[in-house]
Amino acid sequence: MKKLLTTALSTCLAAFLYAQQPPKPPVSYTDALSLNLIGQVFPLKKSYHRIDTAVYADFSAGIKRLLTNGAGLAISFKTNSPRITAKWCVTNARPHNNMTPIADKGLDLYIKRNGKWEFAGVGRADAVCNEFVIVQNMDRTEKECLLYLPLYDEVRSLSVGVDSGYQLTPGEDPFPKRVVVYGSSVTQGASASRPGMAYPARLSREMGVHFLNLGLSGSGKMERNVADMLATAKADAFVLDCFANPSPEQIKERTAYLVKTIRKMHPDAPIVMIQSIIRQSGNFDSTVRRLVERQNENTLKQYEQLKKDGIQRLYLIRGEDLLGNDHEGATDGIHPNDLGFDRMLQVIRPEMIRILKSNQVIK
Amino acid sequence: MKKLLTTALSTCLAAFLYAQQPPKPPVSYTDALSLNLIGQVFPLKKSYHRIDTAVYADFSAGIKRLLTNGAGLAISFKTNSPRITAKWCVTNARPHNNMTPIADKGLDLYIKRNGKWEFAGVGRADAVCNEFVIVQNMDRTEKECLLYLPLYDEVRSLSVGVDSGYQLTPGEDPFPKRVVVYGSSVTQGASASRPGMAYPARLSREMGVHFLNLGLSGSGKMERNVADMLATAKADAFVLDCFANPSPEQIKERTAYLVKTIRKMHPDAPIVMIQSIIRQSGNFDSTVRRLVERQNENTLKQYEQLKKDGIQRLYLIRGEDLLGNDHEGATDGIHPNDLGFDRMLQVIRPEMIRILKSNQVIK
Repeated sequence: MKKLLTTALSTCLAAFLYAQQPPKPPVSYTDALSLNLIGQVFPLKKSYHRIDTAVYADFSAGIKRLLTNGAGLAISFKTNSPRITAKWCVTNARPHNNMTPIADKGLDLYIKRNGKWEFAGVGRADAVCNEFVIVQNMDRTEKECLLYLPLYDEVRSLSVGVDSGYQLTPGEDPFPKRVVVYGSSVTQGASASRPGMAYPARLSREMGVHFLNLGLSGSGKMERNVADMLATAKADAFVLDCFANPSPEQIKERTAYLVKTIRKMHPDAPIVMIQSIIRQSGNFDSTVRRLVERQNENTLKQYEQLKKDGIQRLYLIRGEDLLGNDHEGATDGIHPNDLGFDRMLQVIRPEMIRILKSNQVIK
Repeated sequence: MKKLLTTALSTCLAAFLYAQQPPKPPVSYTDALSLNLIGQVFPLKKSYHRIDTAVYADFSAGIKRLLTNGAGLAISFKTNSPRITAKWCVTNARPHNNMTPIADKGLDLYIKRNGKWEFAGVGRADAVCNEFVIVQNMDRTEKECLLYLPLYDEVRSLSVGVDSGYQLTPGEDPFPKRVVVYGSSVTQGASASRPGMAYPARLSREMGVHFLNLGLSGSGKMERNVADMLATAKADAFVLDCFANPSPEQIKERTAYLVKTIRKMHPDAPIVMIQSIIRQSGNFDSTVRRLVERQNENTLKQYEQLKKDGIQRLYLIRGEDLLGNDHEGATDGIHPNDLGFDRMLQVIRPEMIRILKSNQVIK
């Protein structure tokens, strides 16, 4: 009797909801690898890894794993469907306690409107494999879309869904110029609230220049083999945001090799060093505070020495004010929250515009 | 042999670390309930719930569960210990995909310095029960501390640890005036990056007035029994940020009862209605956009009708610009990220200062 009542109620509810809105057509899924995967430093079209680590067998296991994360990658596509959905699988890696699962393992959709990339919806990640309606009830004009991949996990499979009968085609890479950003967890996107809020992604959309994300959480330590790889990238400029992970001594030992190796392969490309953000856990912890001070002192010294050595088109962005001065710009005492990232952009964006313009990378 | 080698290596590593820094004294733990738990609307000193729901037996099960969450509660204490740690247990409730585990189930410490509350460290939550060093290597002056509880989970137990031999005593409630904030998930703190970044907590620290968090995620719907409870609160003012959860029809039916019931018990208290933030998922989804427009139209109409009915000291803060206009201020299309909350504060804070000053609640 109870079961019968429940069924009757469910039927009533379904009928009510049905009356509220017209039924939607079934979703038709397309493997995202047949669309346009953008954001890789080297073309690697049949994988969602950032770098083909089989080519770089001598990288550490930690770096290899981080290069499987989707930070900075996006699927470019066009559709006139009023609804966009996704099915995707990531790994069962433990979620990070300083990130939302949306940023860590989820998706983030932007759509171009009036020449600007605007947020449209997210793919929420609650499991290893997820299916989610990212946006619906849109008008039926054709739209250019960018679907950002998870910042801190590997995408094992991804399909983009649209309503049956609507078109779904590969989009262009909307950002013709390429800036390689090599760095730490901050570069990789911890702790942005969703994948599109990582600062290289925000810079790309706001400047129309592709800031390619080679943030290596905790492992952006300027090893020689990584420097050698970076130098072979096809790029119009380089950002070195890698002074939070190495020790002050490693900064002293490794910076010149990194900069000079890039310079050798890219005689004219601007190279922009960004000092470490101030760690907010050092607000009261004097040991942490002193560590970052020493990292940034040594970064400054290396910059000055390299300028003395005659390295041209080398720039330094100072770290002191990147997160503002109220100590509210970080999630966990280390990684910026979206407020901190916004403050970083207020310093970095005008500097990057000035540098790229003065070097004729952009007009 | 392998085991022997591992042991030898561990011993070497321990010796190395030991040489790096002097050994710390053992930690001495104190049950946080013997310190000063602040932020409850009604005193409830032996529980980390926001409201004693046994007193309000007719509240819905959903509201009762939400009232067990720690949003807005904090432990006030004083210590001169160079290190502060915590041990705490929450429930095994599924983590929210739009929040960091630190915000959802973790802790957030602020320390007063030069008259201002400044971020000091977090308690990272990776399990049901956690132990974490929140901050260390501090100077040994006595400090006033506020340890915020998890926004979206129930604290089952909590102990604060300091180095043995240092004092740990209850602190005062630093915020003498009391503003009850009744609202939705946005009020409760989704999706702030950590507990102290929920907007009522930020308002409290920045204004020196206690904004008591009665945000009820998804359930801030102005039911009569909730209105009756709110009206009995000891408060200097009320903020009604509860227009995102009810349907437009419910806003029409319920707002007058809520406002008039509060007014009857508090003839002089300012009552501030805040329209819903704009849902960023409605940026392209016309159904969502229209829903929020209708909620905010009806909120405005109710406000105007109540003013016509002669309700004095009633104020309205408009919703349109609360998250800015670049659509980057939300985590999941609904809930503000820290950038969105910061933008909300830029509108709400000066309005609240003006309103509380003009009503002699603050000078």
